Amino acid sequence: MGADPPHRVVVVGGGFAGLNAVRRLRDAPVEVTLVDRQNFHLFQPLAYQVATGALASAEVAAPLRAVLKRQVNAGVVLATVKGFDLGAREVVLGDLPDGEPERRLAYDTLIVAAGSNYSYFGHEEWREVAPELKSIGGALTIRGRLLSAFEAAELEPDPERRRAWLTFAVVGAGPTGVEMAGQIAELARDTLRGDFRHARPEQARIVLLDGAERVLPAFPEGLSRHAARELEELGVEPLVGRTVVDVDAESVSWEEDGGPVRMPTRTVVWAAGVRASRLATLLGEAAGTEVDKAGRIAVGPDLTVAGHPEVLALGDMASVHGPDGEPLRLPGLAPVAIQQGRYAARAIATRLRGERSRPFHYLDKGNLATIGRSKAVAELRGGIHLWGLPAWLAWLTVHIYYLIGFENRLLVLLRWTFSFLTRGRGARLIGLGAKAPEP
Amino acid sequence: MGADPPHRVVVVGGGFAGLNAVRRLRDAPVEVTLVDRQNFHLFQPLAYQVATGALASAEVAAPLRAVLKRQVNAGVVLATVKGFDLGAREVVLGDLPDGEPERRLAYDTLIVAAGSNYSYFGHEEWREVAPELKSIGGALTIRGRLLSAFEAAELEPDPERRRAWLTFAVVGAGPTGVEMAGQIAELARDTLRGDFRHARPEQARIVLLDGAERVLPAFPEGLSRHAARELEELGVEPLVGRTVVDVDAESVSWEEDGGPVRMPTRTVVWAAGVRASRLATLLGEAAGTEVDKAGRIAVGPDLTVAGHPEVLALGDMASVHGPDGEPLRLPGLAPVAIQQGRYAARAIATRLRGERSRPFHYLDKGNLATIGRSKAVAELRGGIHLWGLPAWLAWLTVHIYYLIGFENRLLVLLRWTFSFLTRGRGARLIGLGAKAPEP
Repeated sequence: MGADPPHRVVVVGGGFAGLNAVRRLRDAPVEVTLVDRQNFHLFQPLAYQVATGALASAEVAAPLRAVLKRQVNAGVVLATVKGFDLGAREVVLGDLPDGEPERRLAYDTLIVAAGSNYSYFGHEEWREVAPELKSIGGALTIRGRLLSAFEAAELEPDPERRRAWLTFAVVGAGPTGVEMAGQIAELARDTLRGDFRHARPEQARIVLLDGAERVLPAFPEGLSRHAARELEELGVEPLVGRTVVDVDAESVSWEEDGGPVRMPTRTVVWAAGVRASRLATLLGEAAGTEVDKAGRIAVGPDLTVAGHPEVLALGDMASVHGPDGEPLRLPGLAPVAIQQGRYAARAIATRLRGERSRPFHYLDKGNLATIGRSKAVAELRGGIHLWGLPAWLAWLTVHIYYLIGFENRLLVLLRWTFSFLTRGRGARLIGLGAKAPEP
Repeated sequence: MGADPPHRVVVVGGGFAGLNAVRRLRDAPVEVTLVDRQNFHLFQPLAYQVATGALASAEVAAPLRAVLKRQVNAGVVLATVKGFDLGAREVVLGDLPDGEPERRLAYDTLIVAAGSNYSYFGHEEWREVAPELKSIGGALTIRGRLLSAFEAAELEPDPERRRAWLTFAVVGAGPTGVEMAGQIAELARDTLRGDFRHARPEQARIVLLDGAERVLPAFPEGLSRHAARELEELGVEPLVGRTVVDVDAESVSWEEDGGPVRMPTRTVVWAAGVRASRLATLLGEAAGTEVDKAGRIAVGPDLTVAGHPEVLALGDMASVHGPDGEPLRLPGLAPVAIQQGRYAARAIATRLRGERSRPFHYLDKGNLATIGRSKAVAELRGGIHLWGLPAWLAWLTVHIYYLIGFENRLLVLLRWTFSFLTRGRGARLIGLGAKAPEP
């Protein structure tokens, strides 16, 4: 009988990829340590609902220790990863809760799944005026800005300046941008209607900007058209084929056929230009592997880093290459991350049994995006396309199903029922947002 | 037929007193403007549950515009009050959402109900290391500190330093301090038990410090004894008769019979030394009325400021004097504030009809404090004293009843049911706390 020390797996990142890897290692003969700089898993697909006050932050977040409470082979360390020492097989940790400047964590297998952020097309200075919608801190900042803009409009006597306060721009017409623009429209036209004595929130102008030629470019063209029409019904102007060239505290500017356009606005929300976590670059430097234009590290068909079969990279920060060496170009979606996390866990267990694992294969179950109340688009397996109410019901079901924790599922269902019936939003609080963490 | 401009009432502060005044003016021939620096009403008696992750902040907060949506004679202005110009009958506003440095708001009747904060016995430097539990910002800061202390203990190899991370001090043994100490004990011994691999949260030491000779000094002695015993059953050490003389990042010190004691701890929560809002002083200076030792402005039996029948001060920031000129010494409780808000609304309506209003009279319905799961004390009308489960059920019923908004009532009930059944806490998030606003 073996008295070998257990195989140590360190997982960096408690998002969809990392957390699913940890949970699927439940019965494997390993000792898992999950490292995250936040003590909770964020259900990122609903972060935009926090940004518009439809949900409280705690309702889309699950404390990591609570999720893993019963998994006796898993521990959690709250820290930032400062570097990887692949030679010594150690992760270098910083920002520790006890104030120590640095600690090292040894591993036999390392999984890095640190996700992605929005980039600002090389204009980091826009981050301050146009907060991004990837983190809970960003969502709370946006919530405060959105609600404050209506408060400012209420006090502003000058019609032109009031108009700027009631103009909202969302940059990026992927699923997050589309959902955000739709939610701002519903916030203004339904929730806040009648809440003010001078401002008229229902007169708000909401524009959705993207350099691409259509909204939701990852969806089939027909669904993009449905989405654009549903956005217009909500009162959002989808301005596609427009590349943003400047953002400041009082305006956003873009290029279009007729030349440059400058639109006065006090509120810009950023949801464009996905870029892998800086940990992809750090890991690439440590492993001698290059990152691609979006900052993602290349991994092989088994999700390992070249020359390091004991190091896997998953999720948004990795670019998977097939057996032929070509990138698979997987979308940056939760299902991809979940399946990769589960694959990684299986691969580790397989390898510990001395067997070889098959290449990762993404099972595409479809793609969903919601636009608003009874408005969504869905591309399901087998070429089935849905829009309107059926797509929206599919979206609701899937999101409630994947939300972690029975308690959160019930709370979110309850909030959504209230919002549906009353068009109210219970979490419209200004000023409780932390600064978004540095990417 | 009168074409008089409507009587303008400005209410400063959307707490229990101010918000109840506004709502009770619903049918009066007046135009009401509520000024608050936050866009929500905080249900302060449950703020401590946010501080321990039992409830999300949005669940104990109600957006003011949502509360007043259907009250057509009421508006809301989000701003800080910088001063009172009683001669011109104007309130001077700052920190406006549109960035204007200052605006003035004219009134015919002014109600000021800006509440109170905890003072630090003249040691403002303690505020940074020992956050207070009056605001939602403070509660979120405390939540982050409490949870981080357990995270630090998990990583700390040195037993003595780990001990300091697992030692928690609550200063002030009034209802808030007692509730907070009890919640920390339940967090450590129930919720977090088994969540860590190295730290043993159930070994946490929780001390409750107060200079008074017993916990809950405002309650009858018998109930204080019950409360102390229930605290001890939860594992809290009630250290009464101890005056805190120093707090720093690594310890708290107090005087006791044998001399000074210094206890190493990394987490101190402050709930002592109530002091009226600085607006009481500003109003006192404007009206030529002195404030008392606790910073409260003196008001007459009809809650008006001497020499200014058009200015009322309510709630924690006012000291009501009876017809004989003696202070009534009303407790700083929500029921007092609620009754004063309703009285003020009635008094204004009465005066507009040309009649005189009777002096304010506080109807004491009793006093409740909870200590933990099935543990509470209650002093009801007619000298009925309850403790244990009956008192706890009374506490639950009253708090759910007074919580504003049907949606929040249901959400809080649901969270409490989950916590009761699982001993879990759904909102255990670190790092989303804003800084507490300046008092």
